Amino acid sequence: DPSLKVFTLNSNKGLAHEITEHIGVSMGKSSVTRFSDGEVQINIEESIRGCDVYLIQSTSAPANEHIMELLIMIDALKRASAKTINVVMPYYGYARQDRKARAREPITAKLVANLIETAGATRVLTLDLHATQIQGFFDIPVDQLMGVPILADYFSQKELDDIVIVSPDHGGVVRARKMADRLKAPIAIIDKRRPKPNVSEVMNIVGNIEGKTAIIIDDIIDTAGTITLAANALVEHGAKEVYACCTHPVLSGPAMERINNSKIKELVVTNSIVLEDEKKSEKVTELSVAALLGEAIIRVHEHQSVSKLFD
Amino acid sequence: DPSLKVFTLNSNKGLAHEITEHIGVSMGKSSVTRFSDGEVQINIEESIRGCDVYLIQSTSAPANEHIMELLIMIDALKRASAKTINVVMPYYGYARQDRKARAREPITAKLVANLIETAGATRVLTLDLHATQIQGFFDIPVDQLMGVPILADYFSQKELDDIVIVSPDHGGVVRARKMADRLKAPIAIIDKRRPKPNVSEVMNIVGNIEGKTAIIIDDIIDTAGTITLAANALVEHGAKEVYACCTHPVLSGPAMERINNSKIKELVVTNSIVLEDEKKSEKVTELSVAALLGEAIIRVHEHQSVSKLFD
Ligand SMILES: Nc1ncnc2c1ncn2[C@@H]1O[C@H](COP(=O)(O)O)[C@@H](O)[C@H]1O
Ligand SMILES: Nc1ncnc2c1ncn2[C@@H]1O[C@H](COP(=O)(O)O)[C@@H](O)[C@H]1O
Repeated sequence: DPSLKVFTLNSNKGLAHEITEHIGVSMGKSSVTRFSDGEVQINIEESIRGCDVYLIQSTSAPANEHIMELLIMIDALKRASAKTINVVMPYYGYARQDRKARAREPITAKLVANLIETAGATRVLTLDLHATQIQGFFDIPVDQLMGVPILADYFSQKELDDIVIVSPDHGGVVRARKMADRLKAPIAIIDKRRPKPNVSEVMNIVGNIEGKTAIIIDDIIDTAGTITLAANALVEHGAKEVYACCTHPVLSGPAMERINNSKIKELVVTNSIVLEDEKKSEKVTELSVAALLGEAIIRVHEHQSVSKLFD
Repeated sequence: DPSLKVFTLNSNKGLAHEITEHIGVSMGKSSVTRFSDGEVQINIEESIRGCDVYLIQSTSAPANEHIMELLIMIDALKRASAKTINVVMPYYGYARQDRKARAREPITAKLVANLIETAGATRVLTLDLHATQIQGFFDIPVDQLMGVPILADYFSQKELDDIVIVSPDHGGVVRARKMADRLKAPIAIIDKRRPKPNVSEVMNIVGNIEGKTAIIIDDIIDTAGTITLAANALVEHGAKEVYACCTHPVLSGPAMERINNSKIKELVVTNSIVLEDEKKSEKVTELSVAALLGEAIIRVHEHQSVSKLFD
């Protein structure tokens, strides 16, 4: 179908090429470089007039650079008369700034939604938003895909016995429940409480984990503080082994050191965010979301619902 | 006047503090830092409800970081109920991407205007836009100030004799004319021509420069290729001495090496963009635009025209 064009920006070119291979199209030709002063210089090097363009960019770190690249490319596509501009964001940066936690804070997740629309996007395709509410920050259609099936498949092939799926906090219970359903396992919840102000947190565990293989699931692992403390608490409370998994491996600052020194046996992530060489570790397994995103692009292009991808 | 608040972001804090000193107000309290993964974290630390806020940020390099900081701060100010949000941008990044020079290019200067409006700015105050047309990219009021009076004053105090003001290209003649009027001097124009494709450019000079002190003026000096070639051509054609000046010292890549090795005797710039230590040179003189911007803020706040500042 010559009206389907896929372009990539610089955040996650490897994944983008896997996606075009899956779909069976060649990558759209464009040059995304920098002027001498660091400003983004973009040129689209083939006609896209009247086409449905799928533009792949995770707004992972450096988030500001990747967001501006994305906005400038959308502007160029719009001015080059694309029929539709479908932004494929495997990772949606700034998603954690989705509400005013304190007075006089920005709501950057909403700002970014407005910026993407203002630039000219007509649809967004993304994976595991930190809060589903972010869909409502947009006035254009947003399709949200889920990493759970991919993560669950991987663990199911490992044939671990007596597993329990653990949510590292109360906010993640729905996700843990989905994973548990796929693996026909029970769930447990880490229940952090601070008994008094300025007293350190106590990690209670709600649910039975004794002698079991625990799999902690989260959407984002950033500095890995929560997840490594949870893993150690699980082992202390009698778990046999602890695995961890997430869709988005932000892994900033002390993350890798914490993971390597923790009781986590294996960390399973997706390639929604590039795993740089210094984050590669024997403990980390990377799964690809290319087939999922490729199928989703095909379905969107054929005006079909993407929810079928989770059956 | 307690309803006037000035805040600064990170691009040009020195200038911002000079401006608050000039106006006689204290700097608005805010924290503009980064999360562990590099995302911008902003908190406004005093009430601005119902206030007229003046927010100082040059979108100089790294332009993308400085633009995102600006947009996020505007979002925070808007949500904190500022009455007006006046963005003071001494340097407007991406101003040179103000038209499609080739097919399928973005018009990033227009995109940035849309982003600033979408975030919630109500007015823009800026200095020497690369193209005056950029004012029309906004649907909110834009006040444009000029660096020429400050640069002209400096040269007038030097009491150089027999000067000629030189425009480095045809696009800069209006600016050179303004400078020449202030210094009561004639003008000359560098007329670059490429006799045949793939033959190097010839630098003709239109106007009489023989035995004179030439002052080249431009809005932006970036890699300094044009200006240093122009300076050398002027000396070859008989100019006695060559000075250069500009409002915005981008000075990227080979700029400082070129300037230091050129026939330019002195380069005079403003502090619209911070001059990092490695760009400081005996040849470079920095003039402050703080009083100009401070006066402009006072006038805008008192609902007066800023054009009086150029009489
Ligand atoms: N990039 C970031 N890194 C760490 N914390 C963040 C980031 N962005 C937002 N936050 C904070 O994370 C909290 C939201 O996280 P959560 O409670 O997991 O939804 C808010 O208090 C935000 O201020
Ligand atoms: N940051 C930049 N550095 C160098 N050239 C640029 C930059 N942004 C835009 N341009 C190019 O500069 C040209 C416009 O410059 P001018 O002819 O002086 O208005 C256009 O061809 C742009 O593609």
